[in-house]
Amino acid sequence: MPKAERAVSQNTTAPSAPSALSDDELRTLDAHWRAANYLAAGQIYLLANPLLSEPLRPEHIKPRLLGHWGTSPGLNLVYTHLNRVIKARGIDALCVWGPGHGGPSVLANSWLEGSYSETYPDVARDGQGMERLFRQFSFPGGVPSHVAPETPGSIHEGGELGYSLSHAYGAAFDNPDLLVACVIGDGEAETGPLAAAWHSNKFLDPVHDGAVLPILHLNGYKIANPTVLSRLPEHELDDLLRGYGHVPLHVEGDDPATVHRAMAAALDTALDRIADMQRTAREDGVAGRVHWPVIVLRTPKGWTGPAEVDGVPVEGTWRAHQVPLAAVRENSDHLRQLEAWLRSYRPEELFDADGRPRADVLACVPDGAKRLGSSPHANGGLLVRDLPVRPLDDFAVPVEKPGTTLHEPTRVLGDLLERVMHDTRLRRDFRVVGPDETASNRLQAVFDASGKAWQAERLPVDEHLDRHGRVLEILSEHTCQGWLEGYLLTGRHGLFSCYEAFVHIVDSMVNQHIKWLKTSRELPWRAPIASLNYLLTSHVWRQDHNGFSHQDPGFVDHVLNKSPEVVRVYLPPDANTLLSVADHALRSRDYVNVIVAGKQPCFDWLSMDQARAHCARGAGIWDWAGTEDGSREPDVVLACAGDVPTQEVLAAAQLLRRHLPDLAVRVVNVVDMTRLLPREEHPHGMSDFEYDGLFTTDKPVIFAYHGYPWLIHRLAYRRTGHAHLHVRGYKESGTTTTPFDMVVRNDLDRYRLVMDVIDRVPGLAVRATAVRQRMADARTRHAAWIREHGTDLPEVADWTWNS
Amino acid sequence: MPKAERAVSQNTTAPSAPSALSDDELRTLDAHWRAANYLAAGQIYLLANPLLSEPLRPEHIKPRLLGHWGTSPGLNLVYTHLNRVIKARGIDALCVWGPGHGGPSVLANSWLEGSYSETYPDVARDGQGMERLFRQFSFPGGVPSHVAPETPGSIHEGGELGYSLSHAYGAAFDNPDLLVACVIGDGEAETGPLAAAWHSNKFLDPVHDGAVLPILHLNGYKIANPTVLSRLPEHELDDLLRGYGHVPLHVEGDDPATVHRAMAAALDTALDRIADMQRTAREDGVAGRVHWPVIVLRTPKGWTGPAEVDGVPVEGTWRAHQVPLAAVRENSDHLRQLEAWLRSYRPEELFDADGRPRADVLACVPDGAKRLGSSPHANGGLLVRDLPVRPLDDFAVPVEKPGTTLHEPTRVLGDLLERVMHDTRLRRDFRVVGPDETASNRLQAVFDASGKAWQAERLPVDEHLDRHGRVLEILSEHTCQGWLEGYLLTGRHGLFSCYEAFVHIVDSMVNQHIKWLKTSRELPWRAPIASLNYLLTSHVWRQDHNGFSHQDPGFVDHVLNKSPEVVRVYLPPDANTLLSVADHALRSRDYVNVIVAGKQPCFDWLSMDQARAHCARGAGIWDWAGTEDGSREPDVVLACAGDVPTQEVLAAAQLLRRHLPDLAVRVVNVVDMTRLLPREEHPHGMSDFEYDGLFTTDKPVIFAYHGYPWLIHRLAYRRTGHAHLHVRGYKESGTTTTPFDMVVRNDLDRYRLVMDVIDRVPGLAVRATAVRQRMADARTRHAAWIREHGTDLPEVADWTWNS
Repeated sequence: MPKAERAVSQNTTAPSAPSALSDDELRTLDAHWRAANYLAAGQIYLLANPLLSEPLRPEHIKPRLLGHWGTSPGLNLVYTHLNRVIKARGIDALCVWGPGHGGPSVLANSWLEGSYSETYPDVARDGQGMERLFRQFSFPGGVPSHVAPETPGSIHEGGELGYSLSHAYGAAFDNPDLLVACVIGDGEAETGPLAAAWHSNKFLDPVHDGAVLPILHLNGYKIANPTVLSRLPEHELDDLLRGYGHVPLHVEGDDPATVHRAMAAALDTALDRIADMQRTAREDGVAGRVHWPVIVLRTPKGWTGPAEVDGVPVEGTWRAHQVPLAAVRENSDHLRQLEAWLRSYRPEELFDADGRPRADVLACVPDGAKRLGSSPHANGGLLVRDLPVRPLDDFAVPVEKPGTTLHEPTRVLGDLLERVMHDTRLRRDFRVVGPDETASNRLQAVFDASGKAWQAERLPVDEHLDRHGRVLEILSEHTCQGWLEGYLLTGRHGLFSCYEAFVHIVDSMVNQHIKWLKTSRELPWRAPIASLNYLLTSHVWRQDHNGFSHQDPGFVDHVLNKSPEVVRVYLPPDANTLLSVADHALRSRDYVNVIVAGKQPCFDWLSMDQARAHCARGAGIWDWAGTEDGSREPDVVLACAGDVPTQEVLAAAQLLRRHLPDLAVRVVNVVDMTRLLPREEHPHGMSDFEYDGLFTTDKPVIFAYHGYPWLIHRLAYRRTGHAHLHVRGYKESGTTTTPFDMVVRNDLDRYRLVMDVIDRVPGLAVRATAVRQRMADARTRHAAWIREHGTDLPEVADWTWNS
Repeated sequence: MPKAERAVSQNTTAPSAPSALSDDELRTLDAHWRAANYLAAGQIYLLANPLLSEPLRPEHIKPRLLGHWGTSPGLNLVYTHLNRVIKARGIDALCVWGPGHGGPSVLANSWLEGSYSETYPDVARDGQGMERLFRQFSFPGGVPSHVAPETPGSIHEGGELGYSLSHAYGAAFDNPDLLVACVIGDGEAETGPLAAAWHSNKFLDPVHDGAVLPILHLNGYKIANPTVLSRLPEHELDDLLRGYGHVPLHVEGDDPATVHRAMAAALDTALDRIADMQRTAREDGVAGRVHWPVIVLRTPKGWTGPAEVDGVPVEGTWRAHQVPLAAVRENSDHLRQLEAWLRSYRPEELFDADGRPRADVLACVPDGAKRLGSSPHANGGLLVRDLPVRPLDDFAVPVEKPGTTLHEPTRVLGDLLERVMHDTRLRRDFRVVGPDETASNRLQAVFDASGKAWQAERLPVDEHLDRHGRVLEILSEHTCQGWLEGYLLTGRHGLFSCYEAFVHIVDSMVNQHIKWLKTSRELPWRAPIASLNYLLTSHVWRQDHNGFSHQDPGFVDHVLNKSPEVVRVYLPPDANTLLSVADHALRSRDYVNVIVAGKQPCFDWLSMDQARAHCARGAGIWDWAGTEDGSREPDVVLACAGDVPTQEVLAAAQLLRRHLPDLAVRVVNVVDMTRLLPREEHPHGMSDFEYDGLFTTDKPVIFAYHGYPWLIHRLAYRRTGHAHLHVRGYKESGTTTTPFDMVVRNDLDRYRLVMDVIDRVPGLAVRATAVRQRMADARTRHAAWIREHGTDLPEVADWTWNS
């Protein structure tokens, strides 16, 4: 347990004098801290008697003790001292609370400052409100034990660790007047996403962005183990932080007065330096890289809680992680110890008889929107403005005849994004993020409007690097995702372009973001924010040289498990439909939009007007592609979703037209995957009437899908015609090969689809034996050709619609 | 572009003299390197004329140029110099190639050393073999462009970046005589998993583990951007590496001779220090933390390739990432430039007229299993031994009457794992890994047999930390997964225990491991390795205080998208079934076994014998729980999978028995989820005959499932009785609440299940109106009770089977 009591370490490059806190300031800061500690402990334990106005009895104690005490006193210290500097300097600040299990702390502080009661008037800032605050915590029907959407002032769910620092940077980008403090727990610091996010400082522009102040909180232990960083020699930790590009400032101790003085001094030093560096960059135009301060706060886990329980040490150990006294209702020693602990904060000095915080306690608290629990930046929907998206006709590709011209859809989208980037050059509220793939994904047009953010060394040979750029590229999907989440949650817009397979890297992050949005939508005080938009490209069907490791279309399956009110999935089949879908996504709120689109040359099927109409319906019949005459139901439905399946379905339709001209074929294209769900299951879901009208109730449907085929069954199993639905898709049969060989390997090719039609349409098997054999022969011919030439069959490579 | 030519940097704590490479050694090392460079470039470009025995013509060039040149010369340098030290010192070594896109390099080197031709005799070490080596690369039906399972000597798929260093540590654990070199690309170094893995050195025991030698290869660029680490000032990079606990050794330059000398010196220095530190720990018993060396290798991207193409710089820039000369077939200048480039390696000096490498080229190559491409450690199935698992009766809980006693299943499993840990104390080939959750997941019995690996500072208050421990805990699911993968791939065994929701953090890693296993199973020379076993606990239904952020049962859905020959999913309903399933998993090979089991007290349903029989079937009728008389089909089937659903189904069965005694109810429990799949889709899939025998073809089936309900439909949609299948499960309705409230919120509770039965069994709705109302009343009573007390209804909390 740390015992040293240094004010500010000699490891700083320019040590500051200890802060000149007056005794009065010290007293009121400590009163605020004690009040927060009292309220944090109270939330974990008390159902009643919140002010300890009578001796504690078992019936005052919650029946189930749930919560995390360990990190709370440290977070309370940070909140108290952030209050001081915000008030003293009149700055706008936000704090990201990485040790999110410290919910009791952040709730306590926002209640103290009044934000909580303004947000939730039934939890007033008085004794009755305090009792409600205590009771609701980690209680059925109450509030989570973590910092969560329900917590005023939060943009960061504390349940899953690792994302605080990237969220903080996301909040700071393009917020030049904002200070984003970020408390990083030493447990969280062991995660990969957190470890990667330290290098975010190479992307933070001191001119147009705000400052991030990381506060690494070393309380020494996780659930049951010491933490790695807390057990490094201090010089090694300093090396690490300097290697991350920071200047460390140390605050350490277990004597409150000493730590208060040290913390005040460290914060003053840090904020002075930040102000100085921002001034140098903004006013003096100095362009060198900035080495921002980091505060290392080393205090005991469960500080001020029970030192020992049942003869074993608790304070300063992992045993303080959750509930230090576990048997309070049953064990009278524990009950007595709890009462002594709570009374050690001297609640009578902190709250008046009605339970209202006394003036001393509130002396450090800033006013109004300066309060951390009331910052509009933490409720980004209050700040978000509509994104300027120009008319799509400016970017549309001309389509006179479907399937005869080719465009790279993402490149076409790049032109649209370039204009958005251009039109937000002064507002600076739009970012494109990606793991070193913006150009690979063919969105490089955006560089005409903004370079790539880069604060590190530049060489003459470099291209598009820009200290003030708004394209963010780092080879970490986690950091990209965290940056964008933080940016959106503070009221801005963005797009994440990613290789389809590797977006699984952020599966767990998107889970948490969807949960955040779902919960936020149920909170009337949270205003809707811009949607999180994914462009997934370099997809499963076109990994010609990367092969099997780069083939995974399962992100769609992953997000479709989550809340339907939040999740949208689009598979535009060509350039103009991609424009339409992207336009919709960029204008939308509170969704996670997953758009899967190819970057390789792809046939243009729909004009811009057709594309708009088709995307508005989400799924529809392409009558120009089918052979129905309208007088009766078709013999078979060829359905498709995704660019490559659409091409194969149209090629199959053409083969059927040629070889089986009597067959009435309907072609249906699905852009919006959730249209397939029942209306009761998803807001976009089709009624059975609509579905049956598209797919029939009893005709064979051959569905060529971009991803894992069973997803279509999972979406459509309740439909009347489900027994007639036959789906082809990616079935994990991948390798390094040509585009057409990939579809052949997965039985999604045009020849196989025609064979499927012949096998499924009643009576056709006999009538079309020769055609079926022709198709099988074509597959054999393909196999021989590719072995010999390593390229696709000329008849496939040169194919166009209606040729 | 780096121009400085230092041998070994002054930043090392104890600088070495430049290596005393003789001129002859230098000459032969350079010959090997040039040969590897030639072969790497040849793979990217040539279809024919591999030895350039005639002038290069367009038809010698591949029709599609696919591959990554940029990283290859650096990897060739590393391979060449590892050869030298392996041979000189007679050591056993393995190398993990993080820049896995450098497939051409690793293939080139393993062909040079003969490993490739021994593994693939049709690619002989002669001119014809060279032509095959070239042609097959990144060619349909050939080999991937990355280091992959097909690559001899590899344990690391290079397609998805970030896992090299954790894999290297996994390989080094419990391999005291092995050197594991690990090349880390500066792109990969930006990822979270890689950044987290640096701290693995705090878990590496210098006594029982081997050494990991990271070689950070800074070639400056990713696909289209500079890399962060290459643009740090050197002192900042050194701070970072020292902060990670390493001593940096620098090798830098673009003059081959200088770099050869520097690399040889750095490797000699590193290996001398490693040997010295191991000796100190092993022979002298010195127990301090070891600061291992790291080599920083700074060479130009695409080194020795075209300096400029079409007037723009290529060598030393991102433009060298893939194919430096892109239009060789069409553009005669490019063709000439390619020929000049290839001839610059002087192939005639490197290969004889038959294409065999000359003696000089092979002078550095070690013999037999010492060759990196022939190490048995890289083909772990050659080394793996059966794990000693004691008879399950030693751990089984007694069950005289089902549903009357309670055990924590994972705690019972902990006893079994403790014995495995004990019985492998000398062999040291079993590890338990987890993100600080071993005790939280109630497996703490294992600490009786082994402590937790920990090399950093220890304090008196710590428990179970042990320099030689084999339990690995770090708060990084990525690092846990990477360690375990590396450990298994080198022929050992292990188990990863993880909170169910957060295992999504490694979704993408498990994708790659499953792909690895799928491919390996198709390679006759790769021997089967131990399965990757997950114990997912702290599951969705028991997040009483962690709430919504900790609720996600979707990992099962994720893995079931992947190759069925690899994936197994088990949901044991109680302690004895967990023992049986775990026993099976620990003995199995080449699978990914996902076991979902609770850690909270859970009813014991089956005796050990019953559990064994039930798990062997994977799904079966619990006739003691139902009310069939065997003379006819049941009226309804109540099916369940997972511990909580099983409890609710049995409670529902009991309610039906009491309230509707005439109803013939069948209870089916499913342990092995893949049994539900058709036999054609999964090796464990049931035939329709079996399925129909369990579930009937026309009776209502009310299926209570642990996870997302649509998974059951996705597995069973082809079954005859599918239209009668009604599934309840988690539908993303979560919060901080009690266990019973969770099942109520998701309509999985006993009362709801009884209502489902009444609603679905023909004719029952009318007959059982009163019973249905009773059930609805119980749900109302629950809602009121929990609002008031915050605990579960006593009738639920005190329920036992048949009570």
